Amino acid sequence: MTKEMITIDANEAVSRVAYFLSEVVAIYPITPSSTMGEHADAWAAAGVKNLWGTVPSVVEMQSEGGAAGAVHGALQAGALTTTFTASQGLLLMIPNMYKIAGELTSTVFHVAARTVAAHALAIYGDHSDVMAARQTGFALLASDSVQTAQDNALIANIATLESRIPFLHFFDGFRTSSEVAKIEQISMDEIRAMVDENKIYEIRERALNPERPFIRGTSQNPDAYFQGREAGNKYYEAVPAIVQKAMDQFAKVTGRTYHIFDYVGAADATEVIVIMGSGAETAEETAKYLNKQGRKTGVVNVRLYRPFDVAAFLKVLPASVKKIAVMDRTKESGSIGEPLFLDVVAAINAGLAKGTAPFKAMPVVTGGRYGLSSKEFTPAMVKAIFDELAKDAPKEHFTAGIIDDVTHTSLEFDPMFSINSTETKRCVFFGLGSDGTVGANKNSIKIIGEETNNYAQGYFYYDSKKSGSVTISHLRFGPNPIRAPYLIGPNDASFVACHNFSFMEWLDILKYAAPGAVFLLNSLYGPDEIWDHLPREAQKDIIEKKLKFYVIDAYEVAAKTGMGSRVNTIMQTAFFAISNILPRDEAIAQIKHSIEKTYGKRGEAVVQKNYAAVDQTLANLYEVKIPAAVTSSFSRRPAVPAEAPEFVRDVLGAMIAFEGESLPVSAFPVDGTYPSATTKWEKRNIALEIPVWEPDLCIQCAKCATVCPHAVIREKVYDPSYLKDAPETFKSIDAKFNEFPGNKFTIQVAPEDCTG
Amino acid sequence: MTKEMITIDANEAVSRVAYFLSEVVAIYPITPSSTMGEHADAWAAAGVKNLWGTVPSVVEMQSEGGAAGAVHGALQAGALTTTFTASQGLLLMIPNMYKIAGELTSTVFHVAARTVAAHALAIYGDHSDVMAARQTGFALLASDSVQTAQDNALIANIATLESRIPFLHFFDGFRTSSEVAKIEQISMDEIRAMVDENKIYEIRERALNPERPFIRGTSQNPDAYFQGREAGNKYYEAVPAIVQKAMDQFAKVTGRTYHIFDYVGAADATEVIVIMGSGAETAEETAKYLNKQGRKTGVVNVRLYRPFDVAAFLKVLPASVKKIAVMDRTKESGSIGEPLFLDVVAAINAGLAKGTAPFKAMPVVTGGRYGLSSKEFTPAMVKAIFDELAKDAPKEHFTAGIIDDVTHTSLEFDPMFSINSTETKRCVFFGLGSDGTVGANKNSIKIIGEETNNYAQGYFYYDSKKSGSVTISHLRFGPNPIRAPYLIGPNDASFVACHNFSFMEWLDILKYAAPGAVFLLNSLYGPDEIWDHLPREAQKDIIEKKLKFYVIDAYEVAAKTGMGSRVNTIMQTAFFAISNILPRDEAIAQIKHSIEKTYGKRGEAVVQKNYAAVDQTLANLYEVKIPAAVTSSFSRRPAVPAEAPEFVRDVLGAMIAFEGESLPVSAFPVDGTYPSATTKWEKRNIALEIPVWEPDLCIQCAKCATVCPHAVIREKVYDPSYLKDAPETFKSIDAKFNEFPGNKFTIQVAPEDCTG
Ligand code: SF4
Ligand code: SF4
Repeated sequence: MTKEMITIDANEAVSRVAYFLSEVVAIYPITPSSTMGEHADAWAAAGVKNLWGTVPSVVEMQSEGGAAGAVHGALQAGALTTTFTASQGLLLMIPNMYKIAGELTSTVFHVAARTVAAHALAIYGDHSDVMAARQTGFALLASDSVQTAQDNALIANIATLESRIPFLHFFDGFRTSSEVAKIEQISMDEIRAMVDENKIYEIRERALNPERPFIRGTSQNPDAYFQGREAGNKYYEAVPAIVQKAMDQFAKVTGRTYHIFDYVGAADATEVIVIMGSGAETAEETAKYLNKQGRKTGVVNVRLYRPFDVAAFLKVLPASVKKIAVMDRTKESGSIGEPLFLDVVAAINAGLAKGTAPFKAMPVVTGGRYGLSSKEFTPAMVKAIFDELAKDAPKEHFTAGIIDDVTHTSLEFDPMFSINSTETKRCVFFGLGSDGTVGANKNSIKIIGEETNNYAQGYFYYDSKKSGSVTISHLRFGPNPIRAPYLIGPNDASFVACHNFSFMEWLDILKYAAPGAVFLLNSLYGPDEIWDHLPREAQKDIIEKKLKFYVIDAYEVAAKTGMGSRVNTIMQTAFFAISNILPRDEAIAQIKHSIEKTYGKRGEAVVQKNYAAVDQTLANLYEVKIPAAVTSSFSRRPAVPAEAPEFVRDVLGAMIAFEGESLPVSAFPVDGTYPSATTKWEKRNIALEIPVWEPDLCIQCAKCATVCPHAVIREKVYDPSYLKDAPETFKSIDAKFNEFPGNKFTIQVAPEDCTG
Repeated sequence: MTKEMITIDANEAVSRVAYFLSEVVAIYPITPSSTMGEHADAWAAAGVKNLWGTVPSVVEMQSEGGAAGAVHGALQAGALTTTFTASQGLLLMIPNMYKIAGELTSTVFHVAARTVAAHALAIYGDHSDVMAARQTGFALLASDSVQTAQDNALIANIATLESRIPFLHFFDGFRTSSEVAKIEQISMDEIRAMVDENKIYEIRERALNPERPFIRGTSQNPDAYFQGREAGNKYYEAVPAIVQKAMDQFAKVTGRTYHIFDYVGAADATEVIVIMGSGAETAEETAKYLNKQGRKTGVVNVRLYRPFDVAAFLKVLPASVKKIAVMDRTKESGSIGEPLFLDVVAAINAGLAKGTAPFKAMPVVTGGRYGLSSKEFTPAMVKAIFDELAKDAPKEHFTAGIIDDVTHTSLEFDPMFSINSTETKRCVFFGLGSDGTVGANKNSIKIIGEETNNYAQGYFYYDSKKSGSVTISHLRFGPNPIRAPYLIGPNDASFVACHNFSFMEWLDILKYAAPGAVFLLNSLYGPDEIWDHLPREAQKDIIEKKLKFYVIDAYEVAAKTGMGSRVNTIMQTAFFAISNILPRDEAIAQIKHSIEKTYGKRGEAVVQKNYAAVDQTLANLYEVKIPAAVTSSFSRRPAVPAEAPEFVRDVLGAMIAFEGESLPVSAFPVDGTYPSATTKWEKRNIALEIPVWEPDLCIQCAKCATVCPHAVIREKVYDPSYLKDAPETFKSIDAKFNEFPGNKFTIQVAPEDCTG
């Protein structure tokens, strides 16, 4: 069977499977799960049919509490029902989840797992939300990649139909939910081959129905509640085998094999990491790499977290294991250890007590926290964990990925350690929020993923300032599936692009460039002038890393070809022209093909304009001849001025410059309390054009000041004496207000704060 | 220092301490925590001042979600703030709890711990709600009795002020929250002696304040969130010592000693139970009892559950322990074991790994569930647990208190096992909801608790049918503090009263009577007639248990003395007259004194009417001469008729007859699904007077049928042919409706459903 490959993010892939298997979808948007609901909503609006040929009813409620209530109601009425959520949204569903589970109701909630707000809000990924729901009686199934997320969406649905236990299927928010990857798509036929229609008849039989009334949801008293609560036990006991059966059937239908616990690594491993979610992929790849170097390491990838099958877990643990690190992507302050750690200790203890463990003595079991709110979890950190385990007395509890100089929980790691495959191309693009860079890169991934045999991965990092922010696109391409759920690191990229010249003045973009990499810069300066406009640090990197350096004035090309200020097609073309990912001609043809697809319905003129931009790109793309020495007279400026307060300079400044990653724990307030009015120190300088006050035309209505959302335009009425020491270029006119006779009036503009 | 003793329930005692230490109280009522909020509201309305002489602002919000938000807001503004909640109410507070904890904010939430609704709703007590909040970062402090609940309310407040970690202080819903007990009251001076005012200044300093603005609650990204989350670690590390310090200071101030873990039992115990909440008291008393019989048992009473202090826990565990049963009052389906079990396994494993455990080999650690939704947890069950531990291979996980004939988790126990002290008097009263029995019993407890040296305890069991339900009051009195947080059992009561004669026809009231007990019956039949109106079972018990049997026609006394149908004062007087709890004259004087207190402001006439009722009671109270043999021609009728469907007869019937306790798991639906329309089988027969249709007066307006809330009155218009076989007494008249010429009209009354 030939597989249909598709380049897609996990949210869309999961939503698609969920949609096909649902009659009712009750939603409420919360980042990063929102697009699951949005896709379902769009499909329903477009009349896309589910597996049974009906269009699901997609309803948006007033909150996640309402969505969970709607799900509960629809389920009781016998409809196949799903929802999507994350974080606080999931917390609001908890009361209904207890009911749905207690009533043994088949459903799957798909969760793009996200941080629950504590000392601060954070929209990024970790398991604190799903762990807050682990006691509800839902089964919890974890996915570690875009491919698995799609596959588990189906497996969870099959297992809930058979077991009657509701499932919470989760995957790491942003890291997996928003990663674009080339995966094998599940076909409608494959879904059909997995679904047992009898189970759906049984659901209809159990539904509330006025024609054969019964009560579900009584009020019970001390005499009877406990017995009723135990009456469902055997349904839970059956779940692990049912999930494994669904996985086995899935393997038959699709060829992709999963187990409720998957072990990867040396059969005689002495050091083992237990982990779930995207971190498992990183851990597995690192263990394989280390084993090639003679280490004895392994990884247990926990897929079915609840119900936790002790016997199945013990079965995959190698008998040789001496030390185990259980990695939790959550923090439960005040607990002895995080949830997965507690489970693993209890599971092994039970195995030893019953003699079912593959060894006779308790291994050392330590617990680690990692990746809170999408904190990077890299092979370097995995290696640090294995190294810690190899010590005589590993830390009992630790953190991986940070520097904890306060309570000293952290493991040191070597940020330069890498397990990169040389066959994979890594490309990093710096763009300005809403300049089209991210969209163009998604398009490039689709071209490479769907038009070639290459695998592709894209991950897009934003700085949360939305429009006008810095976006960093991390793209990987290569002949093998890409199992690297972390950012491209320093010295890792064979291609680096900077789509906004102002970034060069303050951002260390070239740290990503590997020796010999290609560097593409959108530059107002041509190949002959550019060198002297680069800061010393950039010149040094270009020379020392022997980069191939290209410039293009994309703004000029855009203006000339009628594209306005949209540089995305131009920079994408330049990327293909010089990156050697695809043969140049083939790439150009593909870009034009996708222009046709995207703009075709807007008319031939638009298509031709874009074609012209592509052609002009090639004509205006110049390689820069690299001088032998650093000659620049200026350095990169700090992200905030030196006169800013210490905290702003050292902490916020580092975060603005994308160096926050390496700030130690001591840099941070203990309770999330920050100084206010710090934005004044952050001068972004991103506007290409700024407003200019024309005193001759000004009628002093002051509407311009009201209109600017960034408070860039300020007006002032003041006593003329203040003008005494004003510089000559300072503009002022007589104030026209009766209330202020004899005063002066000025409107000023703060160019550095303007977003253009 | 002489202690002020007070007879009070935990809700009031806790609310009082919380109120004195608060400036803002944000509430939303949920059973069984409601009265905490109601008391605070009433005190504020009455202008009662807190420790600092101001009246707290008590605000009722639109839901517990709103209450938690209001608490968060008030705390940020620097106000000392509290709230009270339970169950789903607590679930709605979880999102704010993460924030409050993450921001290191001092507050105490007082929780009357209650079941979270699953297969069914239940308003009774267990720890499923607080366990659903254990990951929020709140400290969790458990109370095991009314006395401790009051004391921990203060200790938690002191500890939160010093540690900055918010506290969730909990005690068992209903079992503790609504138990009336005689306790040592904390005085205002004692509270003042505990509070460090400097901590309050610090709170004010940390408050949001426009005069020195800062930001608390930022949005953070992957670079920084993790480090910020670890920045508060040392505050958590400090909590256990801070709580112990507060407990030590509390001991100095009040003389009452607590530890974060308290061990009770043999110093060389081999079998140990770990438990928290009211069950700990039962376990401790049973261990002491068993140890006197030569057993080596012990109990670890967990008071500070979060942060869990491994070292302190290991320190109280006897080195001799071989087997441990960890008892959880919650169920987390799909987990390896419940939360406290997982913690204990991890704690001991850590101790063994580090060599800090008092023993060298892992003891057998089993996990048990008990007491879900106030399911009884008695010394008999505790003994069954110790007996299980004494076996070579104790069950790995079990339930205590039920018969699980499906998944066979349960331990067998001997319901007749008892550790009753002979010095304690036990009295059981059957009343009809809103007949005043519960109120009178609370008054009796106050009289005995506050006017004598006796300790007193009252617990009131309702059947959830509210008005018209059966209430069972369980009262204990004695010279020693009463540590028995469970109902009075079969053969346990030295006094049994039945305040409603109809109960005798179907309820097994006399099973509670110990041999030689006193039995008081409110009877329409005098001492000479009553015997033949008792069912055979009652006669048998009276004869075999050699009961002293008294009757009084309380309805007649009430009617004659102008009390209407209120029999409470009369039955209370009769109780004191024949129970020998207090000397008769003293008791009568106390009743009159309390009548004066209660009714004094309604005028002398009301007081005199009540005095007359008291005097007439004594004149109309008769001892019944007990015949030698059972002579009755009838048996107790089943709670539902024999022709009812099997499930109604065997399951619902048993529950109606207060025998639901012993129904095995197999009797119950797996998913909370019940047949509908079963109330028709439950004939309560509680009305003393019923409506009678008078055809002569009837104008066929049918308003009577509309008015009856129990649908007892039905009217019918019908063809005269239906009257063919009607019995002679069947009343009918011509229908007066133009639409139905020639028809007949009847109004019928269903006497058995009437509530009177
Ligand atoms: S940010 Fe600049 S362009 Fe935008 S409104 Fe303000 S002054 Fe005008
Ligand atoms: S229950 Fe009886 S007394 Fe009450 S309204 Fe109905 S018929 Fe009247």
